[in-house]
Amino acid sequence: MAILVHLPSFMATPITAALREAAPDIPVWNGRENAPADEVEALLAWGLRPGVVPAFPKLRLVCAAAAGVDKLLAAPDLPAALPVTRVVDPGQQTGIAHYVLATALRHARALGTYAEQQRRGEWRRHPGRPLSRCRVGVLGLGEIGSAVARTFAAIGFPVAGWSRGGKGLPGVADFTGDDGLAALLAQSDILVCTLPLTPQTHGLLNRRTLSMLPAGAYFINVGRGEHVVEPDLLALLDAGHLAGAALDVFSKEPVEAGDPVWNHPRIEATPHIACDPSYELVAQQCVENLRRARAGQPLLNLVDRAAGY
Amino acid sequence: MAILVHLPSFMATPITAALREAAPDIPVWNGRENAPADEVEALLAWGLRPGVVPAFPKLRLVCAAAAGVDKLLAAPDLPAALPVTRVVDPGQQTGIAHYVLATALRHARALGTYAEQQRRGEWRRHPGRPLSRCRVGVLGLGEIGSAVARTFAAIGFPVAGWSRGGKGLPGVADFTGDDGLAALLAQSDILVCTLPLTPQTHGLLNRRTLSMLPAGAYFINVGRGEHVVEPDLLALLDAGHLAGAALDVFSKEPVEAGDPVWNHPRIEATPHIACDPSYELVAQQCVENLRRARAGQPLLNLVDRAAGY
Repeated sequence: MAILVHLPSFMATPITAALREAAPDIPVWNGRENAPADEVEALLAWGLRPGVVPAFPKLRLVCAAAAGVDKLLAAPDLPAALPVTRVVDPGQQTGIAHYVLATALRHARALGTYAEQQRRGEWRRHPGRPLSRCRVGVLGLGEIGSAVARTFAAIGFPVAGWSRGGKGLPGVADFTGDDGLAALLAQSDILVCTLPLTPQTHGLLNRRTLSMLPAGAYFINVGRGEHVVEPDLLALLDAGHLAGAALDVFSKEPVEAGDPVWNHPRIEATPHIACDPSYELVAQQCVENLRRARAGQPLLNLVDRAAGY
Repeated sequence: MAILVHLPSFMATPITAALREAAPDIPVWNGRENAPADEVEALLAWGLRPGVVPAFPKLRLVCAAAAGVDKLLAAPDLPAALPVTRVVDPGQQTGIAHYVLATALRHARALGTYAEQQRRGEWRRHPGRPLSRCRVGVLGLGEIGSAVARTFAAIGFPVAGWSRGGKGLPGVADFTGDDGLAALLAQSDILVCTLPLTPQTHGLLNRRTLSMLPAGAYFINVGRGEHVVEPDLLALLDAGHLAGAALDVFSKEPVEAGDPVWNHPRIEATPHIACDPSYELVAQQCVENLRRARAGQPLLNLVDRAAGY
C-alpha cells in the first residue's frame, strides 16, 4: 500500500520528502522503476504517458501535483471511473495573483520603457496611463482567476471576469457565454488568462478573438500555452495591435531555443513559475485523499472529468 | 489679480491650461517674464530660486505643484508668514502605491532574474520566496505612505510603518522614534521610503541605517533623493548586503550621464515618474485656495512650516 511519485525530478525530490514527512506510515516511491506494482494505491503526477496507469492494478486515485489537470486527463488509458484530484492552494492562488499583478503594473506604469531609457541613459518622462484605461479582463473565475480578479479590484483597477455562470465577486463585472466573451475582450486593456485547458478552451485566444481587444492591449497568460494560437499572438504583436504580453506558459515546455514566442522583444517570458506550489500542501492533500479513498469517504478537490477541471 | 505658474515647461504648459479651464475669470501667467508683478496673488511652483518671491509684493500664497514642498521651503527669502499649500491627490497616492507595488513584486518574484534568463534563452526555475520573507517596512505614513502600506496589506504582505506618532492602520504594525526605526529596519525585507524631506530626514538612509536591514533586502525610494546617502547605498549593493533597489528620486535630477546611481546593474532607476499628478487637481486646489485666501478662509492642505511638510 504505497504512493508513487511520478513527476519531473525537480518536483519529485521535494514532494517525495514532503510525503514521507506527512505520512511516515505510508511507503512512498520516487519513480516507477522499482515500485512494487501491486502495492501502489495513489499516483502523484503532472502528466501520464500511455501505459503508466494500467501498470498499477490497485490504483485508487490519481492526484495532480498542480491546479491544472489537462496533462493527466489527456492520458488515453485513464479509466473513466478512476478519481482524479487537483491541488487547491490558497498560497499558490495568491502567488499567481502577485505574478499577474507584477506584470500588469509593469505594463501599466511603462516600466519596461523606462528600463530601456535607463540603459540608454535617457531621463525622459511620459504621461501616465489613467486607471480608467487599465481595464482588466480575467478569463476564468475559478480559485485562481477569482484571486487574480479580487487582487486587482482591491488596489483600484476596474475588473471584469468571464466564467460559465458568473461569480458575483464584489467589484468584478460578470460576463458569460460567447457574446459575453466578445464584450469582455472589447473592453479589456489588460487580458489575463487563468482558464483550465479543456477541448472548449483549447486555442480560444486566436487571431479572431485577440483582435477584439482594444488597440494597445496587454495579454498575460498563466493558464496553459495551448489556450493561445502562438503565431496569431506574434502576428498581432508585430502588427502593433497588442502592446505586449507576459507569458508564463507555452504550447511546448521547455520552450525550444530560437522559438519566437520566447524571443519576441515585447514578450516577457518566464519558465512556468507563476504558480509556486507548496510541496507540503501537495503532499498533505494527496495523503488526506488516499486516507479518504481507503475509508470510502468523499475526496477533496475531485476533478469533474466531463468538465475537464 | 492673477496666478503665476512658475514651473518647468513640461508641467507648466498643461497646468496653465488646467488653471484657465478651472477659473476662466482669473488671469493666469505662464512664466514670470511678462507677468505684472503687482497683480500676482498666487504662485504655483515646485522650487523657488532667491529673488522670485520678493518680486511679487501682493502674494497671498504659494501653492506647491506636488505633495513634497522641500524645494519650496528651501527658498531663503520665503517669508515665514506666507502660507504654503501642497497637493493632496488620492489618485496620485494610488499611482505611487502601484509604482512601489510593481517594483516590489518584480523583486519578490525574481522577475529581473527571469528577464536575464529570457535574454540568455535559459529555462530554469528557482524556488519562490514566501510572503513571510517579504516583510514590507514603510518609512513615513502620510497620505502617500499610508496608501502604500494599505496596498501591500490588501494583497497579503506583512506590513509595518514608521511615523512620528503611529497611525493605527489596519494590518500595519506601528513603529515610532529612533528605537522604532532600528526595529523596523531590522525586519524589513522590502524597505519603502515615502518620507517628506526635512532637516530630520535628510541623509536618514546611510551606511549605518541601511546596514540594519536584513541581508538580501530591497530598497524602494519614492521620497526624495536626499533621504539617501547614495555612495553608501551603492557600497551596500556592491557588498551584497542589499539585493537591489528601485529609485525614482535622486539627489540630483536629472541624473548626470555616467552617475553610478543610474547605471548600477542592481538599481532600477526611473526619472521621477512614480507620482503622476493630475494637473486638473493641482489647478483646482490652487484656485480653491486662492479664493479661500481672498475670503480669509482656512486654506486646504496648508503646510506646517515648522514640521516641513
